[in-house]
Amino acid sequence: MTAFDDLMAFTRDTVALGEIAGRMGWDQETVMPRGAAPQRGEEMAAIEAVLHARRSDPRVGDWLATAVAPDAAGAAQLREIRRSYERTVKIPADLATRLAQVTSVAQGKWAAARAAEDIAAFLPVLEEVVALKREEGAALAAGGPLYDAMLEDYEPGTSAAEIAAIFDAMRPRLVALRAAILERPDPAALSGYYPAETQLRMTHELATVFGYDLSRGRIDKAVHPFSSGSGNDVRITTRTNEDDPFNCIYSTIHETGHACYEQNIDQAYLLTALGRGVSMGVHESQSRIYENQLGRSRAFTGWLFGQMTEAYGDIGVGDAEAFYAAANRVHPGYIRTEADEVQYNLHIMLRFDLERALMAGDLQVADLEAAWNDRFLRDFGYAVDKPSNGVLQDVHWSVGLFGYFPTYALGNVYAGCLHAALRQAVPDLDTQLAAGDTAAATGWLRDNLQRHGSLYEPREIITRASGAAPTEAPLMDYLEAKFGALYGL
Amino acid sequence: MTAFDDLMAFTRDTVALGEIAGRMGWDQETVMPRGAAPQRGEEMAAIEAVLHARRSDPRVGDWLATAVAPDAAGAAQLREIRRSYERTVKIPADLATRLAQVTSVAQGKWAAARAAEDIAAFLPVLEEVVALKREEGAALAAGGPLYDAMLEDYEPGTSAAEIAAIFDAMRPRLVALRAAILERPDPAALSGYYPAETQLRMTHELATVFGYDLSRGRIDKAVHPFSSGSGNDVRITTRTNEDDPFNCIYSTIHETGHACYEQNIDQAYLLTALGRGVSMGVHESQSRIYENQLGRSRAFTGWLFGQMTEAYGDIGVGDAEAFYAAANRVHPGYIRTEADEVQYNLHIMLRFDLERALMAGDLQVADLEAAWNDRFLRDFGYAVDKPSNGVLQDVHWSVGLFGYFPTYALGNVYAGCLHAALRQAVPDLDTQLAAGDTAAATGWLRDNLQRHGSLYEPREIITRASGAAPTEAPLMDYLEAKFGALYGL
Repeated sequence: MTAFDDLMAFTRDTVALGEIAGRMGWDQETVMPRGAAPQRGEEMAAIEAVLHARRSDPRVGDWLATAVAPDAAGAAQLREIRRSYERTVKIPADLATRLAQVTSVAQGKWAAARAAEDIAAFLPVLEEVVALKREEGAALAAGGPLYDAMLEDYEPGTSAAEIAAIFDAMRPRLVALRAAILERPDPAALSGYYPAETQLRMTHELATVFGYDLSRGRIDKAVHPFSSGSGNDVRITTRTNEDDPFNCIYSTIHETGHACYEQNIDQAYLLTALGRGVSMGVHESQSRIYENQLGRSRAFTGWLFGQMTEAYGDIGVGDAEAFYAAANRVHPGYIRTEADEVQYNLHIMLRFDLERALMAGDLQVADLEAAWNDRFLRDFGYAVDKPSNGVLQDVHWSVGLFGYFPTYALGNVYAGCLHAALRQAVPDLDTQLAAGDTAAATGWLRDNLQRHGSLYEPREIITRASGAAPTEAPLMDYLEAKFGALYGL
Repeated sequence: MTAFDDLMAFTRDTVALGEIAGRMGWDQETVMPRGAAPQRGEEMAAIEAVLHARRSDPRVGDWLATAVAPDAAGAAQLREIRRSYERTVKIPADLATRLAQVTSVAQGKWAAARAAEDIAAFLPVLEEVVALKREEGAALAAGGPLYDAMLEDYEPGTSAAEIAAIFDAMRPRLVALRAAILERPDPAALSGYYPAETQLRMTHELATVFGYDLSRGRIDKAVHPFSSGSGNDVRITTRTNEDDPFNCIYSTIHETGHACYEQNIDQAYLLTALGRGVSMGVHESQSRIYENQLGRSRAFTGWLFGQMTEAYGDIGVGDAEAFYAAANRVHPGYIRTEADEVQYNLHIMLRFDLERALMAGDLQVADLEAAWNDRFLRDFGYAVDKPSNGVLQDVHWSVGLFGYFPTYALGNVYAGCLHAALRQAVPDLDTQLAAGDTAAATGWLRDNLQRHGSLYEPREIITRASGAAPTEAPLMDYLEAKFGALYGL
């Protein structure tokens, strides 16, 4: 056994244990009895401590110092393991344990507070989470910018300044587009009643249409839809709203994009450091292109309209064109996950600025709701009516995900780049989508991006797949063309 | 921190990790996608290796050598940890890893072979399991009787010879009782159609009636019903047969007995070595007394008859007396878990003898089906018709549970002892059960047995709770009285 082989074998067990921890997270969100939360907090802390000890094991450092990669994939393995090791050794085991414990409790309190519209019940534990995350950020940053150090967990090689620059380039065009749209007549929404049971049945069909392999996955309900797991056990969750079927449909297609990325990674990378999507931004590019550029296209919504009228009868819009308009309606709303393609990034920018301020210590948790509501009023033009429509709507902060939100917008930017290249590669894409056939599109994404897992770094894989370095231009061009036509601008 | 404190803290994390491994077992049996099986095998092997390393950690030996227990509960903690440590250090880590891997695969193959009635598809992997278990038994026995060493995992302090002696005392009385019953007219069975959905709804009501706390548990479907977890996350599974509602009802009450034992353990023992039921036999005594002495009593079935006719209308028997007879019908059948109280132990004796022979090397896996079918014909008087009704009916051997089966019969013996004492303690028990009220009975079991967890050793807790050392006499007296009256013997 060489140092490289030893390191691969050790890492394989670490990755397997990480999969187990991930599965317990799925369990907590879908099936765990409510009364189990404190006990589960201890259990999660125990496995996080094991993972932390393995990821920072001095032997990993020794192996990394002498390991020789046999090939390019081996070199990428070492790169990913080194990144994880160098970051992990900076975090004291005790801090990792406390974070796992507190976030497990905080997530339960968040869910209860959200249900009760009782923000006061959540803020004390959020203060604990923020304090621990700042402690973690300080350990990681080693004197550098604290928030940039956090971004490294989700989008390696990106700084807050770079993200702010992209957002600055997008914002004037988005604001102008939004203002122009909202002066136009509001297209008709769907009407009718959509039984949860029918919606859930349709999720299985939709996920399959987008290439999700249900023999290596499953679909359950959760408050906040998510995808979890890798390789041959990749599960998604969705939610239903019996007045609004789009919520479930597009949550499902979105999570299917995430899940297909994981399911389509080369099996040779299973349970290795390359066996996961390479970054949150690249991951989000997959969920976004499935959901928006494919799922909300005129062509695909034409097929979907047929499915909907077959399942539900009259849905309140008379033809596929009106259905397309309803599926892309830009209208006032509070919830990020329900936002249209135009306004979505404004939701992200709000969170990005607030969480940077929280981490910098410029904003206190006690002032968070007021800051959220102020910013929301400024950006969206109307006031938040209740906490579940405002600062309590997302699970992320309760589980310590700071630095994660901006990757959603980066994902949109990457999706814009990939979509432009996909249109070149598959000229008759719309004909296929109009027949409910995504095979060429999802196959192109699988072959050009998904199968590689973490073989290439984020910027490199987007550049390879789309043929150019990523910029916001293709996304903005696409949005202006699509919504310009939809709203007759 | 004293050595005792250090040992308690270390053990707490080990127990927490064991809970996670257990939860993954639940996942595998209830919700895991089929295609995930090989990957899950690797994941389980990784966490079993972690658990094995912790349970055999040299520091545990050092702490045990110097730890001073502060009280009786502390002494019991040390006793349980010492038992686990001394057994674990005998098993090579590599062997534990291989066992976890092979049994995970074997379980999948068993389920597929059972569905396909294809025993040949299962035997090769069962051979691997048997070989590894014999290797493990040899390591544990250190020259002593191999099967006795395996029994220690499930019923500490019991030998195969002692069990055989109990079985020998029971067998003539059971055989005579069975023969007498089968000469009498067969009571009417239920008839009708029992929708799975209604049965599953009733499982929640039944479990609650027996004191199961659904805020700290949940009920799902599985091929082979089981209970898993401890403390505040104790889950049960059940199954439905739309022609036979008793299958689901009594599986549910049975698993509820197991689950209540775990849920009712003193919260001070949560995530410690005392926080689990003390042995499989004692565990089974709880499931059995819930299922049989309470659940199949004339009094409780009177209440249940009302519930059934309310839920299903005409169920093919006209009154509570006929329903009681149907719930206790002794008739030919193949399946252990569906067997009546009289014949059940004959199923166990068959498995006990076959698995002792497998472990001793006196029986080869290739000859197992023939041995099973021969013995079944001798004991039950008719031939096994297909593997799923014979050697493929139970999950146990596929997952390496050798030495487990006899504890079911010990559980019946213990349940007999506890039931006799319970009748003394709660003279008007039948009045309560006839109203669907199990609070006094389950409360007595909780206070006298369940709450203690592993504080007392198996024989001691039965003796304390029932007032006398366990013998088969109360069980046999109860069976002869009950079935004598039922069948007019």
